[in-house]
Amino acid sequence: MEVKTAIEQKSLLATLTPGKRTRLRRLLFEFGPGQGTLLFLPIDQGIEHGPRDFFPNPASKDPEYQFSLAAEAGYSAIACEIGLASKYYPDYAGQVPLILKLNGRTDVPPAEAPLSPCNANVEDAVRLGADAAGYTLYVGSPRQDDDLIQLGHVRRDCDRFGMPLIVWAYPRGSAIDKKGGRDSFYAIDYAARLAMEMGADVVKLNMEKIDPEKDKDSPAPYNDGGFTQEDAIRHCVASAGRSLVVLSGGSKVDDETLLDQTRFILEAGGSGVIYGRNVWQREHSAALEIIEQIKELMLSSVTRIP
Amino acid sequence: MEVKTAIEQKSLLATLTPGKRTRLRRLLFEFGPGQGTLLFLPIDQGIEHGPRDFFPNPASKDPEYQFSLAAEAGYSAIACEIGLASKYYPDYAGQVPLILKLNGRTDVPPAEAPLSPCNANVEDAVRLGADAAGYTLYVGSPRQDDDLIQLGHVRRDCDRFGMPLIVWAYPRGSAIDKKGGRDSFYAIDYAARLAMEMGADVVKLNMEKIDPEKDKDSPAPYNDGGFTQEDAIRHCVASAGRSLVVLSGGSKVDDETLLDQTRFILEAGGSGVIYGRNVWQREHSAALEIIEQIKELMLSSVTRIP
Amino acid sequence: MEVKTAIEQKSLLATLTPGKRTRLRRLLFEFGPGQGTLLFLPIDQGIEHGPRDFFPNPASKDPEYQFSLAAEAGYSAIACEIGLASKYYPDYAGQVPLILKLNGRTDVPPAEAPLSPCNANVEDAVRLGADAAGYTLYVGSPRQDDDLIQLGHVRRDCDRFGMPLIVWAYPRGSAIDKKGGRDSFYAIDYAARLAMEMGADVVKLNMEKIDPEKDKDSPAPYNDGGFTQEDAIRHCVASAGRSLVVLSGGSKVDDETLLDQTRFILEAGGSGVIYGRNVWQREHSAALEIIEQIKELMLSSVTRIP
Amino acid sequence: MEVKTAIEQKSLLATLTPGKRTRLRRLLFEFGPGQGTLLFLPIDQGIEHGPRDFFPNPASKDPEYQFSLAAEAGYSAIACEIGLASKYYPDYAGQVPLILKLNGRTDVPPAEAPLSPCNANVEDAVRLGADAAGYTLYVGSPRQDDDLIQLGHVRRDCDRFGMPLIVWAYPRGSAIDKKGGRDSFYAIDYAARLAMEMGADVVKLNMEKIDPEKDKDSPAPYNDGGFTQEDAIRHCVASAGRSLVVLSGGSKVDDETLLDQTRFILEAGGSGVIYGRNVWQREHSAALEIIEQIKELMLSSVTRIP
Amino acid sequence: MEVKTAIEQKSLLATLTPGKRTRLRRLLFEFGPGQGTLLFLPIDQGIEHGPRDFFPNPASKDPEYQFSLAAEAGYSAIACEIGLASKYYPDYAGQVPLILKLNGRTDVPPAEAPLSPCNANVEDAVRLGADAAGYTLYVGSPRQDDDLIQLGHVRRDCDRFGMPLIVWAYPRGSAIDKKGGRDSFYAIDYAARLAMEMGADVVKLNMEKIDPEKDKDSPAPYNDGGFTQEDAIRHCVASAGRSLVVLSGGSKVDDETLLDQTRFILEAGGSGVIYGRNVWQREHSAALEIIEQIKELMLSSVTRIP
Repeated sequence: MEVKTAIEQKSLLATLTPGKRTRLRRLLFEFGPGQGTLLFLPIDQGIEHGPRDFFPNPASKDPEYQFSLAAEAGYSAIACEIGLASKYYPDYAGQVPLILKLNGRTDVPPAEAPLSPCNANVEDAVRLGADAAGYTLYVGSPRQDDDLIQLGHVRRDCDRFGMPLIVWAYPRGSAIDKKGGRDSFYAIDYAARLAMEMGADVVKLNMEKIDPEKDKDSPAPYNDGGFTQEDAIRHCVASAGRSLVVLSGGSKVDDETLLDQTRFILEAGGSGVIYGRNVWQREHSAALEIIEQIKELMLSSVTRIP
Repeated sequence: MEVKTAIEQKSLLATLTPGKRTRLRRLLFEFGPGQGTLLFLPIDQGIEHGPRDFFPNPASKDPEYQFSLAAEAGYSAIACEIGLASKYYPDYAGQVPLILKLNGRTDVPPAEAPLSPCNANVEDAVRLGADAAGYTLYVGSPRQDDDLIQLGHVRRDCDRFGMPLIVWAYPRGSAIDKKGGRDSFYAIDYAARLAMEMGADVVKLNMEKIDPEKDKDSPAPYNDGGFTQEDAIRHCVASAGRSLVVLSGGSKVDDETLLDQTRFILEAGGSGVIYGRNVWQREHSAALEIIEQIKELMLSSVTRIP
Repeated sequence: MEVKTAIEQKSLLATLTPGKRTRLRRLLFEFGPGQGTLLFLPIDQGIEHGPRDFFPNPASKDPEYQFSLAAEAGYSAIACEIGLASKYYPDYAGQVPLILKLNGRTDVPPAEAPLSPCNANVEDAVRLGADAAGYTLYVGSPRQDDDLIQLGHVRRDCDRFGMPLIVWAYPRGSAIDKKGGRDSFYAIDYAARLAMEMGADVVKLNMEKIDPEKDKDSPAPYNDGGFTQEDAIRHCVASAGRSLVVLSGGSKVDDETLLDQTRFILEAGGSGVIYGRNVWQREHSAALEIIEQIKELMLSSVTRIP
Repeated sequence: MEVKTAIEQKSLLATLTPGKRTRLRRLLFEFGPGQGTLLFLPIDQGIEHGPRDFFPNPASKDPEYQFSLAAEAGYSAIACEIGLASKYYPDYAGQVPLILKLNGRTDVPPAEAPLSPCNANVEDAVRLGADAAGYTLYVGSPRQDDDLIQLGHVRRDCDRFGMPLIVWAYPRGSAIDKKGGRDSFYAIDYAARLAMEMGADVVKLNMEKIDPEKDKDSPAPYNDGGFTQEDAIRHCVASAGRSLVVLSGGSKVDDETLLDQTRFILEAGGSGVIYGRNVWQREHSAALEIIEQIKELMLSSVTRIP
Repeated sequence: MEVKTAIEQKSLLATLTPGKRTRLRRLLFEFGPGQGTLLFLPIDQGIEHGPRDFFPNPASKDPEYQFSLAAEAGYSAIACEIGLASKYYPDYAGQVPLILKLNGRTDVPPAEAPLSPCNANVEDAVRLGADAAGYTLYVGSPRQDDDLIQLGHVRRDCDRFGMPLIVWAYPRGSAIDKKGGRDSFYAIDYAARLAMEMGADVVKLNMEKIDPEKDKDSPAPYNDGGFTQEDAIRHCVASAGRSLVVLSGGSKVDDETLLDQTRFILEAGGSGVIYGRNVWQREHSAALEIIEQIKELMLSSVTRIP
């Protein structure tokens, strides 16, 4: 079974209130590659994994590295938490838009029933001049009740302040592990739809991994083995509906894979990518170089104007 | 033992405040089949089950499909959550009334003690121009304390804003499973009464399944085997008292069953049906056709004017 | 050991604020048997047990039955939850006072650590014209911390709005079961005192059952076997101090037992009874008849003017 | 190791805001024995233990007994919960100061991780004309997080309203039991300090019991066996610093023990005693007699003027 | 692998709002050793460990000892909880700045999933004239969700009131124990970064202990054994970025170790030390003497002006 072309979606911007539209347009058209695409630089790994991610490129331990990279290379926005937003972003205000991530957690304790607690709120985002708020949703976690209530508060504040809402939609927890795992087509397709239904303007997804052995544990029709990875991407983009989709890179991969998945997501109707370690674990000139390649590829692959 | 005719109930509308009456009249008389009946189209399966429900009819993955169907076929209202209500409903505002469902959950983790957390509130419903708010209550769940407190907040806001309250009354959880199960006459009769007692204006119930083997585990008199399914429907409608009852269809059944249960519920004094997958898992013209049949049958079977 | 006569208590009304006094006087003197007595009709069984309680008298399933009975027979008040109070009480406003019960739970899940969650608040009671608010306290439940905090909020609102507070004081949970059980003299004596100490104006108790075998597990002096049931009633009334005591009937008993316990409680200094199933599980004329007997007996047995 | 004399503390009153100073002076100088001492009558046993404590002296079941005793014998204050404060204290307003205890719990469930939930707040205390608020802190309970947060709210309200805060500092729970037990010098010394650090103006402690066998489980230096009970009292008073210390009596002891511990605490720099059952489990004239003895002894033993 | 020199950080003060800058400058330049260094005296051991820490120097049990020492010896600030701040600090107001610690817990119960509950808030700090608020974060605790939410509230209040935020960043709990333990380089490096990311202006860390055996359980690259303690300190200071770092002493060590670690931290770009028991467990003149040595060493080792 296949989805040949992504479902044609009406312009997202047309459905947004003036505040959200004003801010999101900055990311889509005024900064980054432009033409309605999104290229985000995330620097939340110090919370989610700890400083160990900075060792491959010692310069990356200083947040200045990522902020200056984002501004110099022309990202659509940089995504970080309150500490960096307060102490490092001010020097770059106006040079690169800010996505304030509102929740986060360390990976120290086991995550059978994870919840990412909010350490900041939408009013902080407004105060800091952010153009979007970010929220990590652990789709399918046994603590989904706390998660969805918390997200509901964030979503309402976003509506109240006209702040675009970007949801990091991550399948996680013991129950997902039993149904194909966090990277399965089933899990990520569900995540895409749930984030959209909860009011996300942009959904951040990880790349699905088709694994026939694991997929057998997913519910039908995901368990029947007839899907390619391209099918899966198209489906997930369609599941997010009018919400824009950005694909994340995860840990560092080789350049070809990185560029391939960039092209896939844009051709499938996605709006862009969010690459952290894949970019800032390189030294400065190498980072600028790969970003330039990504931006060019994005503009030549873009299929949807939001 | 039997209940030959449903208990004659005084007009519900006569007991409602002006705000609730204004809104509920729209659903009962101005839209849908009319004559005091209710025909709802639910599109919350993307949250409750994930996108897997859309595969039988790929067009159904795009929420436009359900919204245009609801408007074109003349439903009493469409029921969805905040994401769809924000991004898809605006194009149909005024063409079909909106029921904003305030809570929801994925079916990924096991549900021995389920709770459906609120991701939106009644003020969102007011802001979006909804004519009713929807709430899923898991009757008999070990977490009923959190559930009833949460519902209490929703109910008070509905009273404050004059917003009709529709309760999806679902018996669920490990304790219900030990007493006959979620579809037993005992469980659904209890659900009908509880929802009414908690302040529902409309109660959404699933069709009971008489199963003598399972019913033995229910308390007396439900365990004595003397009830037909028609008895059960009449009892449940009576248990809901002045609150209107709509029956849901659940997963797709054959047309005859669908039409039979539609007639049963209306003859028993119920006010209508809420059919999702049974309708939108059909292609467009087939969907329109069955809706037309349902509407005609409803009008010819209606026994109660609220 | 015995308590020959109930401790002489000062008038409760004299200690109350004007709002509470105004409302409670209506129940004690203007409605019901009068002369400072209380005769309550509870109709919360649909929540606490489900519709199964209505089968013995099918007419009782329609709340109209209890409301009209309460008004026609001249009860001091009818006690129900928000749904019935909103949809059925309005027709009887001014004909019989309303006690709005604020919390309730189904008996579906096991109750080793029960908590009865609030689904309404005192402001609802004010809005609906109620003359008292009702709260179920599970004395000795392992969740007493949540229970007492919740009751504290209700009590403060009652003080703020001048609303009399009636506490259904029920010993419950695994710990009580190990100390003689929910009906033991120990448990009910404790319940009477706790409710009074928490600010109840009226305490609703179940009749104690003296059971030497079970009482051995109660702490001294309750475990020494020297108490009659009359002793126990007198003690419990004394433990409630200035708070008025009403005795409940529980499931249906024979008329002699019913009238005996009515007399006992009033002779012991209690203020009345709360009879639900014992009354409305009878057909209409039989119900009116027993109520008349109860009222006469109350007036001839009354020993305390509050 | 010994603490020969209690650390000389600066006047507590000098550190207090006008509201706290005004109210606390009433207890220390205007009522009770005077000269900066404190003699409290607690009547919260009906909550903490149930009515069983009233059997030794049946008259004591009527709260009038304790209120009239407190007023007639000239206590510094009577300590009770909201029910008694609302229904019995008004007759004695102005005759004996009131300490409103804000939290309490039954002893029905096991107490491995106890928490005493608040059923009233400081605003209630203000409204009722109380001169202090009381709070029970379970030092070392596994639920200390909820306890300290709850106490923090009470403490802030006391600061806001100028209401003196009296902390019943009770070591409790499974962890304390493993380190020498609730009556150990270690546990009570810790309790004294913690209560002071949390903002108590007066700390209520139980008398330590030196038990070399149990003390071995306490941390150093409490486990080395070199302490007398007099050492322990002095240490605990010193640990409470500028906060005043009152010693409780617990269950009834013989008169000699009672008077001895009264003298000990005052000689050690404590400010007084809180005797409930030791007093009101006696009949009226015997109670007055022992109170007179206690008051005289207090005035002749007092070593600290706050 | 090594970090030869600490990453050059821009002035912290330049990034702060006027309120935070005003207050933090007092600690850095007007009190204590000056020249942008920090020397804190903590007196929260009475809560965290109980009075047992005061036995080595009995005079230290009276908080006057620490307050007068802090003022006389010229500390940058004294850190304590609400009780001491209310009852002892007023005499020293203006003589030594105050850090109000907002949370704390006893060490009585086991700490597999620790949380330090707030007993005071930032408004208390403002009211008491404090120049900073202190918060203990248990990095990696299974209860990190409650912890980070609580810290988020404190951080927002600090932003609102212009109050500098000092985070005691302590790796703790069962999960950390399995990954090298609370003193491992991995754990403390993570703690430094997390505190900075959560908005700390100053981060308080414990000295790492390199232990090849335990470090094997840490994630790469911390598990490869190639780090010296000097490397570790430099890394942790770098991980805290623009947030200032102070190193704590823990239990009493010999003078040489104490002075060595003071020098290490300042040479590594840290801003100072927080020494409690190492100072006030000495008698008065010895304490003054070691403080003088520490201050001189700090000024001669300082490498960073914030």
